[in-house]
Amino acid sequence: MTVTDAHTGPTTGSGAAPAAGRVRMEDLPLRADLRGRTPYGAPQLDVPVRLNTNENPYPPPPELVADVARAVEKAARTLHRYPDRDALALRGDLAAYLSGATGVPLTAANLWAANGSNEILQQILQAFGGPGRTALGFEPSYSMHPIIAAGTRTEWVPAPRRADFSLDVARAAELLVEHRPDVTFVTSPNNPTGQSLPLEDLRRLVESAPGLVVVDEAYAEFSSQPSAVALLDELGHKLIVSRTMSKAFAFAGGRLGYLAAAPAVVDALQLVRLPYHLSALTQAAARAALRHAERTLASVHRLSAERDRVAEALSGTGFSVVPSDANFVLVGRFADADAAWRAYLDRGVLVRDVGIPGHLRVTVGTPEENEAFLAASKEVAAEHLLRAEEPSTGTEVSR
Amino acid sequence: MTVTDAHTGPTTGSGAAPAAGRVRMEDLPLRADLRGRTPYGAPQLDVPVRLNTNENPYPPPPELVADVARAVEKAARTLHRYPDRDALALRGDLAAYLSGATGVPLTAANLWAANGSNEILQQILQAFGGPGRTALGFEPSYSMHPIIAAGTRTEWVPAPRRADFSLDVARAAELLVEHRPDVTFVTSPNNPTGQSLPLEDLRRLVESAPGLVVVDEAYAEFSSQPSAVALLDELGHKLIVSRTMSKAFAFAGGRLGYLAAAPAVVDALQLVRLPYHLSALTQAAARAALRHAERTLASVHRLSAERDRVAEALSGTGFSVVPSDANFVLVGRFADADAAWRAYLDRGVLVRDVGIPGHLRVTVGTPEENEAFLAASKEVAAEHLLRAEEPSTGTEVSR
Repeated sequence: MTVTDAHTGPTTGSGAAPAAGRVRMEDLPLRADLRGRTPYGAPQLDVPVRLNTNENPYPPPPELVADVARAVEKAARTLHRYPDRDALALRGDLAAYLSGATGVPLTAANLWAANGSNEILQQILQAFGGPGRTALGFEPSYSMHPIIAAGTRTEWVPAPRRADFSLDVARAAELLVEHRPDVTFVTSPNNPTGQSLPLEDLRRLVESAPGLVVVDEAYAEFSSQPSAVALLDELGHKLIVSRTMSKAFAFAGGRLGYLAAAPAVVDALQLVRLPYHLSALTQAAARAALRHAERTLASVHRLSAERDRVAEALSGTGFSVVPSDANFVLVGRFADADAAWRAYLDRGVLVRDVGIPGHLRVTVGTPEENEAFLAASKEVAAEHLLRAEEPSTGTEVSR
Repeated sequence: MTVTDAHTGPTTGSGAAPAAGRVRMEDLPLRADLRGRTPYGAPQLDVPVRLNTNENPYPPPPELVADVARAVEKAARTLHRYPDRDALALRGDLAAYLSGATGVPLTAANLWAANGSNEILQQILQAFGGPGRTALGFEPSYSMHPIIAAGTRTEWVPAPRRADFSLDVARAAELLVEHRPDVTFVTSPNNPTGQSLPLEDLRRLVESAPGLVVVDEAYAEFSSQPSAVALLDELGHKLIVSRTMSKAFAFAGGRLGYLAAAPAVVDALQLVRLPYHLSALTQAAARAALRHAERTLASVHRLSAERDRVAEALSGTGFSVVPSDANFVLVGRFADADAAWRAYLDRGVLVRDVGIPGHLRVTVGTPEENEAFLAASKEVAAEHLLRAEEPSTGTEVSR
């Protein structure tokens, strides 16, 4: 059979059958809410300086690579068997790391792991969100939160930040009482703006929230503020702290997200996780990477120092810089963020247009990468920096 | 704060706060449909002969293990970077393998991969199922189908098989017209019963189905029937063929499921997949395993021969055996399947109680494992085999 131009609607029954290569998305019975959407994801471009996805710029040290290879070789000998479905050894190692980092006693029962924190967040919304339930976040924030809400058919309630992207905690607490979301996302440090919240603000938000609060701490290792993990003993019936090894641990390619919570939360997530979701190789490689935590995390201090240096230089060039507790900075006062993004790309520097008018987000890289970015910034400023008399744009976010 | 016995309902607002270790699942705002459920999964017990999860009993050959380790070591050097979000190289390798196995020309555009075929099926239902939509399967079949339907809030419509577990295709086609499911699952070979469907039956089902048909071919390499991939060119607007490397490829620990479909279907799934869902290590390891396909798949013939030998021996002992095209057999005429399951376990043999009264499923293992199972079966038969005059139980399935 062949496709005709008249064939535009979804095919049903035993109707016209275009050959596989000629089937179009309009021919498929896709859910209505997905029609016309485009896949999430930053462009994966091969440019000299990639500062767009908040990766750690330092490759894993050779001894970590060797340890991962050794661990994987051992695990590969029994690849014909399913992995430990509960990933108990890995969860024990994560508990030891997080206890050491926060001073809060935790065991494997408090930890859960998945293929990236996105899968962690998806499982949380499968268990505690879903149809007929709502999730709220303070925008601009991590843009996967509303996307995962949509993927789990959880109604998304956007709540505002101040014009300077900080969180008005008193107002936020009022909004939680008003909107009564089933799940609230608090990102600290916030992506893409960089600010973190002190413990007393987090406590106030969790206490005000009628449902669960997920504190997304993907960038916690870069932060000057203590982890929300400190609140678990007190507020474990409504608090989940999500984390990732993608950033500080330089393990973005290994895809390991995790959370700390009350053991009952972990039990609940096991009702919705796909069985054997975490491969034997992932478990082995993540455990190997955790054995090198001290060495890997040494990069955190270097990156924080570089972040402050980059921020200062950008301010000196006339840009606005949101104070950051993460491994990136949100830079403002671009006349046209999209045009500026292309101007950077033309100079071999890939930054991120996060959809905030007048702003671009830049990951802190190696000193050499940061120099390249700052050099490009001076050139970009000449053409794309808002003139002094023009007002800068606010928090109006298009996603 | 302390927990009191009176504290039994979900905690809301700033009410009683049990310490994390004492939070119970009843204290959490879990979705109502998940309350009281238990996690899916066969017991992971350390017994001498494990024949319960349809794994390939042959460990990966040393040269495959070495190749996986080499590939992972190389990938580990850039673990600080996110993986190829589209897994294009892996999808190309899968296309080459599947083209070679089926004779159907396929490219990377036809292939999609995820962390196990469970994630593949979940993505399919996120895109084409979900709230307000239905999915139908012919039971008894793979018990994850209704579980993933529930996880994506897709209404599950169970349809029957004949008393001998074969599929009445004429009746099935009528049911599809009658129930009009958005997604239909056809498992061939069927798990846990073992029968596969010829191509003309699959064509008839796809033609009768008003929506999409997912032919779940997890055990296809063991089957005497051609793959549904042969129908893609003709029926690609409503056919998806799902596969896994867990069984024939002896890669259960690596978690690699995939599908073949029209490129538009792959495009649609990219709207719901979590970004970077497939780690750089998984992509590298799966590609290494595919390079050894010929050697690994040699076990398929040995296992098929063993399957027939085991089936014959069981029949000789007085059991009923469902004709199988997979790497397991469904064995019947147990007076009490649960008691018989325990009797096998007492003898160091772990088989699977799949919830079909009077039946147990046993994976085909190595000749030594199969001997141990058959020896145990003779002993188990003495106490647990239905006497000749008793009627055997039918297809009433409890999950």
